[in-house]
Amino acid sequence: MTGAKQKRVLVTGAAGFIGEAVVDALVACGVYAVTATDAKPAPRRLPEGVRYLAGDISDVSLQTELCSEKADAVIHLATLPSGAAEKDPAAAKRINLDATMVLAERVSDQASPPRFVFASSIAVYTTHNVEAVDDDTPVAPELFYGAHKAMAEVWLAALTRRGAIDAVSLRLPGIVARPRAPSGMTSAFWSDLFHALESGGRFVSPVSAKATTWLLSRRRTVENILHALETDSAAMPDSRALALPALRCAMADLVKAIQNHAGQDEELVSYAPAEAVERIFGSYPPLITKKARALGFHDDGDLETLVRNVFADIEKQKAKT
Amino acid sequence: MTGAKQKRVLVTGAAGFIGEAVVDALVACGVYAVTATDAKPAPRRLPEGVRYLAGDISDVSLQTELCSEKADAVIHLATLPSGAAEKDPAAAKRINLDATMVLAERVSDQASPPRFVFASSIAVYTTHNVEAVDDDTPVAPELFYGAHKAMAEVWLAALTRRGAIDAVSLRLPGIVARPRAPSGMTSAFWSDLFHALESGGRFVSPVSAKATTWLLSRRRTVENILHALETDSAAMPDSRALALPALRCAMADLVKAIQNHAGQDEELVSYAPAEAVERIFGSYPPLITKKARALGFHDDGDLETLVRNVFADIEKQKAKT
Repeated sequence: MTGAKQKRVLVTGAAGFIGEAVVDALVACGVYAVTATDAKPAPRRLPEGVRYLAGDISDVSLQTELCSEKADAVIHLATLPSGAAEKDPAAAKRINLDATMVLAERVSDQASPPRFVFASSIAVYTTHNVEAVDDDTPVAPELFYGAHKAMAEVWLAALTRRGAIDAVSLRLPGIVARPRAPSGMTSAFWSDLFHALESGGRFVSPVSAKATTWLLSRRRTVENILHALETDSAAMPDSRALALPALRCAMADLVKAIQNHAGQDEELVSYAPAEAVERIFGSYPPLITKKARALGFHDDGDLETLVRNVFADIEKQKAKT
Repeated sequence: MTGAKQKRVLVTGAAGFIGEAVVDALVACGVYAVTATDAKPAPRRLPEGVRYLAGDISDVSLQTELCSEKADAVIHLATLPSGAAEKDPAAAKRINLDATMVLAERVSDQASPPRFVFASSIAVYTTHNVEAVDDDTPVAPELFYGAHKAMAEVWLAALTRRGAIDAVSLRLPGIVARPRAPSGMTSAFWSDLFHALESGGRFVSPVSAKATTWLLSRRRTVENILHALETDSAAMPDSRALALPALRCAMADLVKAIQNHAGQDEELVSYAPAEAVERIFGSYPPLITKKARALGFHDDGDLETLVRNVFADIEKQKAKT
């Protein structure tokens, strides 16, 4: 540690699946001082030196306290997930849209615009009747979740044009493997599959064997988020929004890769596809992320590596608890 | 009048420059029953049969009362204009974004989605360093006003995809000639020019002689808004947003057309261009509105007709008061 002042990064949603790993990685790399916040109390194994404030991100007094120290950068992960957002649109607007707008205004600094990394989502796209999603695909959300994310992106890009912040909105694909606990994510079955097969359990897929999705391991997601702290502004698109690279894979191929990894030869997976789930969460076209790749963002490379990254992560989590 | 039930149209911003003329036109064509609302009290010459409710559009109880009768269509014009929005971003969010979102949810009807015509703005675009604006130009707002409009468009399109409403967002160009009264519109000088020359007064232009803008007469604007009530949904772009056709003209050409019309040969106009005003309100590239034209929307055709339409409108207004 040198005498130079560390850059302070504010992480919201810091006790969540991605947030916890982001905080760990920020502390591990040693160049950042971290202020962390989440609706949940501090995780038991909070790394030393992290300033942690529990509270509702849409609460004005929490935001004031969070910003009492100047943030050089923000990683805004706090979100009401898609399934929960559909059930409570008012809460979804408050948390996913309004709180994001206010937070960005609070950290605004014309003299030194902070990098604002926003966890957006591929829910901003429609994925059916689309040949491919690429850098020119316009947003077309159907879920409240995706609509609020797309609207927040517009706001962050506008503040960026005004010189108030320096936004990078990352449209996250399916991140695996989320913990088994109910996450409010309708797409959680893609994660549940890993947990089921890891423990040798049976799995009933709510989508068909040929259903496709876009996946990224949590490990690689965290690397991408930290990379976004340092990405060259001048090379970013004017919208400041990028879909993260992800592997497009079919359910049957993913099952095979997991079973290969686990050394299983039994048939543990059966299929009971539901039309609505298949349409929204299992019909993903090719994803072409040239701009994000040119900026140095990465997916897991291949299915074998994705599965290896996911199981290494699950092992690490088990060791921690 | 037949015994058939009239379609009820809810008009917000109904006492404003555009709203007043929209209400007149709706009543004149005889096929619509009108509920009108505005922050201002009812205009003195409110056409007979119009249900008028004065109040703040962001007020929940007003919205409840407005929606006590089922609206078959909505023309949502209520807005805090650009200059005022820059001065009070919180009020701008409440009126231009939040109230729009709530109103659209309130009138939602899955069984019979109401047409929701939204007065968006060309402020959703950036106009500098752009070769042309066309149907594929992405939004890139710099003003709070344009950012909130772009965000509202995303919301209305999402509700449309969900089958809750049937949105048409019209991106309005400069509408002439707004009344002289302070309107909160930074771009009001394009209107002031008409009034100054009409009365033989002098005019100091805050932009240069070669400054360009996009103009549409109020008369033609109202025709386009009424046309949007009946536009074929299937032919609309997925974003449900369209820039209205407009004449692109240079300040010097507009001055000439007005003076030709008024029979003036004196030089009444001098130029004192301000860099910021020229950049934001006087540097408009070509505007190509193929989709809107294919759907039957129109500009004034040529500058002479625009000027004639504007002065006919000014005369009509004078006769009314």
